[in-house]
Amino acid sequence: MENYGIDIWGDDNFIIEGGVVKVNHESKPSLIKMVKEIREKDYKGPLLFRFPHLIEKQINKLYTLYTNAINEYDYKGKFNAVFPLKVNQLPNFILPLVSLGEEYNYGLEAGSKAELFLAMTYNKMGAPITVNGFKDKEMIHLSFIAKKMGHNITIIIEGLNELETILEVEKETSLPCPNVGIRVRLFNSGSGAWAKSGGIDAKFGLSSTEVLEAFEMLEENNLTDTLTMIHFHIGSSMNSIRPLKNALKESGHIYAELKNLGANKLSAINIGGGLAVEYSQFHRTAQYHLQEFANDVVFTLKNIAKQKGVEEPNIFTESGRFISASSTVLITPVLELFSAEYDSEHLRLKEHNPPLIDELRELYNDMNSKTALEYMHDSIDHLESLLKLFDLGYIDLEDRSNAEILANLIIKKAIWLLEVDDYEELKRIDDKIQEKYLVNFSIFQSLPDFWGIKQEFPIMPITHLDKNPTRSASLWDITCDSDGEIAFNPEKPLYLHDVNLKEEEYYLGFFHVGAYQDILGMRHNLFSHPTEINVVFEDGEVKLEKILESQKIIDILEDIDYDTNEIKKILKTNLDRNTYQTLKQYLHDNSYLKTTWS
Amino acid sequence: MENYGIDIWGDDNFIIEGGVVKVNHESKPSLIKMVKEIREKDYKGPLLFRFPHLIEKQINKLYTLYTNAINEYDYKGKFNAVFPLKVNQLPNFILPLVSLGEEYNYGLEAGSKAELFLAMTYNKMGAPITVNGFKDKEMIHLSFIAKKMGHNITIIIEGLNELETILEVEKETSLPCPNVGIRVRLFNSGSGAWAKSGGIDAKFGLSSTEVLEAFEMLEENNLTDTLTMIHFHIGSSMNSIRPLKNALKESGHIYAELKNLGANKLSAINIGGGLAVEYSQFHRTAQYHLQEFANDVVFTLKNIAKQKGVEEPNIFTESGRFISASSTVLITPVLELFSAEYDSEHLRLKEHNPPLIDELRELYNDMNSKTALEYMHDSIDHLESLLKLFDLGYIDLEDRSNAEILANLIIKKAIWLLEVDDYEELKRIDDKIQEKYLVNFSIFQSLPDFWGIKQEFPIMPITHLDKNPTRSASLWDITCDSDGEIAFNPEKPLYLHDVNLKEEEYYLGFFHVGAYQDILGMRHNLFSHPTEINVVFEDGEVKLEKILESQKIIDILEDIDYDTNEIKKILKTNLDRNTYQTLKQYLHDNSYLKTTWS
Repeated sequence: MENYGIDIWGDDNFIIEGGVVKVNHESKPSLIKMVKEIREKDYKGPLLFRFPHLIEKQINKLYTLYTNAINEYDYKGKFNAVFPLKVNQLPNFILPLVSLGEEYNYGLEAGSKAELFLAMTYNKMGAPITVNGFKDKEMIHLSFIAKKMGHNITIIIEGLNELETILEVEKETSLPCPNVGIRVRLFNSGSGAWAKSGGIDAKFGLSSTEVLEAFEMLEENNLTDTLTMIHFHIGSSMNSIRPLKNALKESGHIYAELKNLGANKLSAINIGGGLAVEYSQFHRTAQYHLQEFANDVVFTLKNIAKQKGVEEPNIFTESGRFISASSTVLITPVLELFSAEYDSEHLRLKEHNPPLIDELRELYNDMNSKTALEYMHDSIDHLESLLKLFDLGYIDLEDRSNAEILANLIIKKAIWLLEVDDYEELKRIDDKIQEKYLVNFSIFQSLPDFWGIKQEFPIMPITHLDKNPTRSASLWDITCDSDGEIAFNPEKPLYLHDVNLKEEEYYLGFFHVGAYQDILGMRHNLFSHPTEINVVFEDGEVKLEKILESQKIIDILEDIDYDTNEIKKILKTNLDRNTYQTLKQYLHDNSYLKTTWS
Repeated sequence: MENYGIDIWGDDNFIIEGGVVKVNHESKPSLIKMVKEIREKDYKGPLLFRFPHLIEKQINKLYTLYTNAINEYDYKGKFNAVFPLKVNQLPNFILPLVSLGEEYNYGLEAGSKAELFLAMTYNKMGAPITVNGFKDKEMIHLSFIAKKMGHNITIIIEGLNELETILEVEKETSLPCPNVGIRVRLFNSGSGAWAKSGGIDAKFGLSSTEVLEAFEMLEENNLTDTLTMIHFHIGSSMNSIRPLKNALKESGHIYAELKNLGANKLSAINIGGGLAVEYSQFHRTAQYHLQEFANDVVFTLKNIAKQKGVEEPNIFTESGRFISASSTVLITPVLELFSAEYDSEHLRLKEHNPPLIDELRELYNDMNSKTALEYMHDSIDHLESLLKLFDLGYIDLEDRSNAEILANLIIKKAIWLLEVDDYEELKRIDDKIQEKYLVNFSIFQSLPDFWGIKQEFPIMPITHLDKNPTRSASLWDITCDSDGEIAFNPEKPLYLHDVNLKEEEYYLGFFHVGAYQDILGMRHNLFSHPTEINVVFEDGEVKLEKILESQKIIDILEDIDYDTNEIKKILKTNLDRNTYQTLKQYLHDNSYLKTTWS
């Protein structure tokens, strides 16, 4: 039975039982049950389920990994972590995260002014805030105000100008100065001095020249004691541990050199993110165990501190993907299977058909499990020839239709014969005979990283798992864009079930969508963010909370700056009262497909 | 002098004169003058200038092309066009478009319910509306209501279920039935029967079997006369004309077959979009002239009509990119050049330096125009060695800093020597010595197609064009993402000027951003849509109108569903009145960098 690699990517968060996917927690509710409960409340379209208990699991895991490593090596530095808001800023994700992280003093990282406002508002007082990204004077002033509010905030400078601005604000206001961190530009990104991410040519960070100057500027202004942190970040979701080790050594040297120059309060190295998430349904991509990652960090820093004779630095991490990816699952119905149209009852055979049509009929009638594969390929050749004949005016539309139907019947029969006899052979057959599944979502809105960087996401049906899937599947979204497709990839094949949507429902789950997808979502065709639901476990019961419906059409139009009163006024002009009332109701629906043809 | 390929992509819309880019229209205002006028009003960050006269130009061009072709071949069908809203739904673009298209009866195409509402509201009564995409019952009901309002609307069905729904709505309501079009799935997409876009496996359209069934369903319900249109779309921005010709022939046959079966009111073939836009700064990519494209459409359809003995169909087009791309230009300041930090005054040479440092000094002093290239490469090797020595603990931070500075001074000197002697040689030198330009915008928000599909956009400075650009440039945006970069590409090199931002401003223009970029824009790091300005020419004067500022931070937070009253309340708690007032002011700023370090 196909398990869609759930043992590879699933981390025991979900299990397959009785043919359906269940949440592997407390009462183990099935996903389909939750979907039905929500849809009964008339929320249609794609549904985004968030599981705060999975956020909690990941936070616990992160702190446990480093606590273990610190204990194992008798390390003197402490472990601290912040969640980078850019990975998921949405309230239904962030508010549970902040509350679940409280016991660890888990903090937030901000990379823009808007994100800094969120951190200032919702970060637990005393938990660390780090401020990254390019900053103007306003953003630095805001950081001072955060400090004044009582926050434990560190501005990580990306350039000397930011330090100059800090000095300016410090002089101009009577506000207390936040801690200062320095992002360093490292040589050792693992791919040479000029590599894009983390190397000398990296987007972020100070060169050695600037690090020295920054320290002198702090000294001149009697602010040496504000310098507390060295920061680097060498990449997201690292599959190998070597580049990190190299970067740790190099930043360790810089840390030690600064300590020796007199940076007395410098006490932390912030290693950014990088903990890998397993997205693959086919093989493990991370080449290390998570504990190994944490052990290497602690061990490497311990050694450098010893070599250079400085105190062991505190360790900060900014892992976002690791904390958030698994917490969110998109579930949405299949609206249509495209082969459904090729039923034998639609055949319009004539008394005299073109010879190739008769041959297709013979192939169909004569095929058996031995000849299935060969006949199927023959039928595709015949179909191509017949399409060409139509194009040249030699056969008519009815002949063409018969050709399409017969070729598809042959393919279906071949699949059936192979399924009975040789399921593995079936899975090896030509990707030309794939089935197309129309799915009620927008890839641009819900899986932007698939469109942009070809990111894989685990995809599987949430029911039917007690049956063999027999169709090579390509998934189409409902946008008017031929890029809105997850094409069948023979190297990473997705097989789905041959379902009759008039009689049964079929939902697909897209897993690991909790990192970046929410905020990167694009409004192609004006489709907006899906309906969100938080799934909370309380006293053994599962509760569906904080349901936030996908945006109403009228609000989408207002968001892109239309005058919605004008819209209503214009629409009203030519319509009777009743029709306008219906129209208005539609204007207050969300934008996804609601009633479908099933 | 570098002209950034303006003769290739510019279509005479902009000209270079006196070292600056000017709008080639009426009073020929310079872009920099408009930028300054806007920035004086305190709109900072990226600016999106829209030029309605360029929309008008493209609409005129489209209708002229087809009118010429129709006249040339004495064609009996009429030409009609609609603008596909998905390409740009924003009011500052669409409202001028509708008004400029009025004289041609230019219509709108909708691909989702939200877009259909826009078409129903703003389309000129009588101008065509076409409805594409997957449709639920609500969307079909809406189309009936549009018809009732008086619109000339055609529902183009993507599947039989949509026709079933049309029949349902027709029975259930007393509303008039819109025209029906059929999207056909074509074999002749130019790349075989199974090609993704337009082929038998295409996302959209009815197979021959379904076309026949659809016609029978219409006949059975006495609605044959609603069938008016055959539709296909084989791809956006086509560079070759051949696939279109093939598709025209095939759809022409289907049109004729249906006419012969009794589709009396069938009168139009809708050929979708496909007119190419030239994005390249280096060479023309379209392999045809626009007039050739229109001529081929008219000529091919004329021939088929003759061959099959049916009337010549009206021609519909849905070109969006062609109409909108050139109308919008993004202009934004460079905030920083990264080599600026490596000034000789920062050298911290010691009495005894590591031998490689001394060698770097000699290279710097001895180099001349003959040895420039060789010495430059040597210096890069030396730098890499010195970085390695630091990493192994053999040299200290000051040595490392000296190495960085000297290597960069050598590169700058080499560039200077080559610029004087051999500018072409300079442009061939190693891409390793590129300069990094930090630009106040988000690539994710403003050029999503660059991130997603590596779409090229013409990029050039809008001033300094009387000087040779000397630096191989990579552009970095202000997001916290190392993907936020337009890397230097030696095959399509971008050279920019070596400017001193403390003394002069430097703005970059990103052209052809009017198609898709507005609505696909992603809110990475919560950066939102740039400030928009419509540039209108009136009585020889240029007016900057409909200024729509980039979203305030507080509105961004509200958009992602935060309770902004709660945010204000929490922020207020720990702050004195004055500090809170400042904070509140920042909350009402837009999210881009405002004060910069210049």
